[in-house]
Amino acid sequence: MSKRISESTVRRLSFYLRSLEHMSQRGETTVSSEGLAEDGGTTGAQVRKDLSQFGSFGKRGTGYDIAVLAAHLRGILGLNRRWRVLLVGAGRIGAALFEYPNFARRGYDCVAIVDEDPAKIGQRWGNIPIQAADCLETIIRAESIDLVILALPAEAAQSVAERAVAAGVRGLMNFAPTQLRRLGRDVPVSEVNLVMELEALSFTITRVGQPA
Amino acid sequence: MSKRISESTVRRLSFYLRSLEHMSQRGETTVSSEGLAEDGGTTGAQVRKDLSQFGSFGKRGTGYDIAVLAAHLRGILGLNRRWRVLLVGAGRIGAALFEYPNFARRGYDCVAIVDEDPAKIGQRWGNIPIQAADCLETIIRAESIDLVILALPAEAAQSVAERAVAAGVRGLMNFAPTQLRRLGRDVPVSEVNLVMELEALSFTITRVGQPA
Repeated sequence: MSKRISESTVRRLSFYLRSLEHMSQRGETTVSSEGLAEDGGTTGAQVRKDLSQFGSFGKRGTGYDIAVLAAHLRGILGLNRRWRVLLVGAGRIGAALFEYPNFARRGYDCVAIVDEDPAKIGQRWGNIPIQAADCLETIIRAESIDLVILALPAEAAQSVAERAVAAGVRGLMNFAPTQLRRLGRDVPVSEVNLVMELEALSFTITRVGQPA
Repeated sequence: MSKRISESTVRRLSFYLRSLEHMSQRGETTVSSEGLAEDGGTTGAQVRKDLSQFGSFGKRGTGYDIAVLAAHLRGILGLNRRWRVLLVGAGRIGAALFEYPNFARRGYDCVAIVDEDPAKIGQRWGNIPIQAADCLETIIRAESIDLVILALPAEAAQSVAERAVAAGVRGLMNFAPTQLRRLGRDVPVSEVNLVMELEALSFTITRVGQPA
């Protein structure tokens, strides 16, 4: 087993990569840990601690080489390859995700779409046809799907997730307003529950200013 | 200052509430911490630890009264009131959020929408008119907006967030593919960065099976 890296560390790595890419676009070549911390509202010490979990990247006095560190972070985040993505659900959330420009830019290619609605099956989004959800397993195997994005109603999420996992996908991203229960095979699942996000926000607002 | 509660605790509280509501719909009246843990893939000990941070809710031997615990969790999560929400950005992500049925069900009322696009201004979504983004401050004050949802391009996010905070909103939820920098006033911000979610997923998949 690999060493456990916290979710918040991974988020900061994503963020450092984004900052490095912006610096690179501006023609900068090196950056200090403090410089990298600045945009993200964190500290130089935190940057050094985060990066030290993956090796030794900086030089005391000169800082980090921006291109080298960005390449390392891409490798760590699994971005030095392309991921084949199946979108399940051709509704509004599915459409918003499909058109999200940064997905493809980051190496995630939506190569197939399925839906249950006969009225949608056969339509095309760009050059991708919407196929029948019944054919999920066939598509996953034929298209060598790595990741499945679930953008479908809560009731359908668990059974589709189980079918996708049984058919061999390596990860799931769930936008359905439900939390997936344990799946047959242990694959990484990212839950993006919009209501939970709002609840976390209202929790924080409600507690601010309360007595300890 | 109130005691610091971790983000993952808050997420579990949201999840416990959802489970309690499902149990209540099925006509159940009490539940053990193990029963509450089951659906969420956590443990009874974790449930007891999470809840004990907010008071004493269960009885040894009989467990939790479902209705009472649900009411407490609603209070803790700030859901025993309604929140007035302004949506900034009437694009696809904005539309998906606007139609998300669970928002209103959870007490979040989208009462105003703004966009920059003259072609969209004046249209209506349901009975809510799309207004000019220029009028952000006026709308926030006139409509007593609590929360702002940013569903707009990355370039515009920071300046709109700053204007919203200056105009008095209590929290922000950011869907723009950028991380907000520190704002003038310290308000809670929930960042929902879809690419970061995918990166966290590909990070996990990439590391699975690597040597320690």
